[in-house]
Amino acid sequence: MYSKDNLNEIIIKVLGKLGVPWEDGQTTANVLLAAEQRDIPSHGMIRFPDYVRLIENSRINPIPAIETIHETPSTTVIDGDSGLGMVVAVKSMNAAIEKAKNAGTGWVSVRNSNHFGIAGYYSMMALKHDMAGISMTNANPLVAPTFSKDRMLGTNPIAIAIPAGKQPPFVMDMATSSIARGKLHIKQLNGEKIKYGYVQDAEGNPSDEPGVLVDGGAILPLGSSYEYGSHKGYCMAAAIDIFSAVFSGAGFGPFVPPSVPYLAPPIEKQGEGTGHFFGAMRIDAFQKKEEFKDNMDKWIETFRKAKPAIENEEVLIPGDPERESEVKNKNKPISLNKELTEQIKRICKKHDVVFK
Amino acid sequence: MYSKDNLNEIIIKVLGKLGVPWEDGQTTANVLLAAEQRDIPSHGMIRFPDYVRLIENSRINPIPAIETIHETPSTTVIDGDSGLGMVVAVKSMNAAIEKAKNAGTGWVSVRNSNHFGIAGYYSMMALKHDMAGISMTNANPLVAPTFSKDRMLGTNPIAIAIPAGKQPPFVMDMATSSIARGKLHIKQLNGEKIKYGYVQDAEGNPSDEPGVLVDGGAILPLGSSYEYGSHKGYCMAAAIDIFSAVFSGAGFGPFVPPSVPYLAPPIEKQGEGTGHFFGAMRIDAFQKKEEFKDNMDKWIETFRKAKPAIENEEVLIPGDPERESEVKNKNKPISLNKELTEQIKRICKKHDVVFK
Repeated sequence: MYSKDNLNEIIIKVLGKLGVPWEDGQTTANVLLAAEQRDIPSHGMIRFPDYVRLIENSRINPIPAIETIHETPSTTVIDGDSGLGMVVAVKSMNAAIEKAKNAGTGWVSVRNSNHFGIAGYYSMMALKHDMAGISMTNANPLVAPTFSKDRMLGTNPIAIAIPAGKQPPFVMDMATSSIARGKLHIKQLNGEKIKYGYVQDAEGNPSDEPGVLVDGGAILPLGSSYEYGSHKGYCMAAAIDIFSAVFSGAGFGPFVPPSVPYLAPPIEKQGEGTGHFFGAMRIDAFQKKEEFKDNMDKWIETFRKAKPAIENEEVLIPGDPERESEVKNKNKPISLNKELTEQIKRICKKHDVVFK
Repeated sequence: MYSKDNLNEIIIKVLGKLGVPWEDGQTTANVLLAAEQRDIPSHGMIRFPDYVRLIENSRINPIPAIETIHETPSTTVIDGDSGLGMVVAVKSMNAAIEKAKNAGTGWVSVRNSNHFGIAGYYSMMALKHDMAGISMTNANPLVAPTFSKDRMLGTNPIAIAIPAGKQPPFVMDMATSSIARGKLHIKQLNGEKIKYGYVQDAEGNPSDEPGVLVDGGAILPLGSSYEYGSHKGYCMAAAIDIFSAVFSGAGFGPFVPPSVPYLAPPIEKQGEGTGHFFGAMRIDAFQKKEEFKDNMDKWIETFRKAKPAIENEEVLIPGDPERESEVKNKNKPISLNKELTEQIKRICKKHDVVFK
């Protein structure tokens, strides 16, 4: 068990030794530790050793010159110069918020970035400005479109945060695939099978084998099969890929570089790095601020009052579970498994950082 | 079998007798007949008798004063004055396109509208301006959120159209539910059962009964069950509801009025009518126009080349099936079933319009 402050310091110091400025290390730590606090450990500390290795291998640039390439009153295109995804994403989301201040809304497409952690973090940055925030990213290909054998898309998540008044905000943050890669990995480690409807084998046949990705299999889009609407999950992942990559000039679909050091970048290069897309919408660009918040409170209260189908399974408002985790975990230390702890210890030793 | 011109004339003349201006009748006919040509008959002529009855019952206003209530450089809020959904939607999408010309993007939230037919129609209006188009709407409640007994959301569709160069555009148009109401209706008429994973009964239990909506049952969100991600379908339908209704002041969730004359409006009123949300994004607000189109061509070509999992089931690009239908149906008459033909004949007789 490690305190948040402790891990925060380790992240900043290790990244500092690799040339990452203090402020950028802090940004990275903020996003990784928010994932831990929100009980999304698949996007938390477990990613840190990958980022370190990718910097060591010159696949992430520790001192990127993040640049605006193109803009209009409501849009910006940013080149992340291969920086840490969190650093590029925070700057880009702030650019969207700045655009929205004048134009009502702001939309930023980003190329040449890297894995950015939890999408929800950036969408929520809009809330304190009384704006709705949108955040999406493409990712290295693991998902097969409906009727395809090939992995063409990432688990491409989208997050949308909308402010309310007395109620906590609406915050959705979801992958567009039927299952997360992290969950498959855990099942595989436990030697368990999975139900059908999550993955297919290399020939495109339904599979119950969680390790199928290693042998050329693929994750299925949200909807799981054509008859239950997997073409809709495919459509959403595709649109997120296009907004993130074709709008910015990033690598799209099969050309998105992997976010882990043990996988080589794709041989054929198409576009620059990972792509993201961010939006900020001033609520008073649509309604009077107080009226908007009142109506959003009513929306949330109405949905919270829906009759539950299963006892003790309350109808949830998007954002409820993660917010409850944050409250529960506020002053609790973060637990890391043994393997991850050892990895971080080795990294600290290598870079001469004290691991307490 | 009836020619497109024939049906076009009937729509305009009948609506004209009810006070709808010629131009607005033409707009309505364009959208209804586009649905027929694109092989989406659930949103085509079958809706026409409903619209007629709703105008007769003063639930749709034939001569609406469609008004801009609020705007910023990139946003507009429009009150549809209870007009025909198609008429309100075309004006609103044009407003989004106008905003995008100056601001780079345009975003329009709409209240006090009605059923607008196929969402894809409006998103595609952006294409000829070299813009990407987005269109969504809420709808009367038929879908239960994950863990809820109650119907709280419509089948809330989203459409996204993105221009390409030599390739035809990317056009997705999808409900966020696991199945369309129309498909359930056909199964019910045929006395067939359906597979589990599409609907639940009034107590929230899984059901294989397509007529379950009549007895207080509900359609399940895309994903079908919590374990396969129905909370993601719920999130999407919820976000579409909020953009369409909380952003505009329309009725949200359970307060969206029904789009059929045989269902009464909700007793408790909250907001004004049905809500829509439209977006237009100039592609040259992000990339040089030709570069964008080249990359979009590459995106489409790459995905079309994905290895098919099933013989004769080519990997599709969103928009392929509907476009192929349009080509196939271009000069073919439209077939209406007997019941619908009789309904239209009765309407024509009542309003003194010749039915050929």
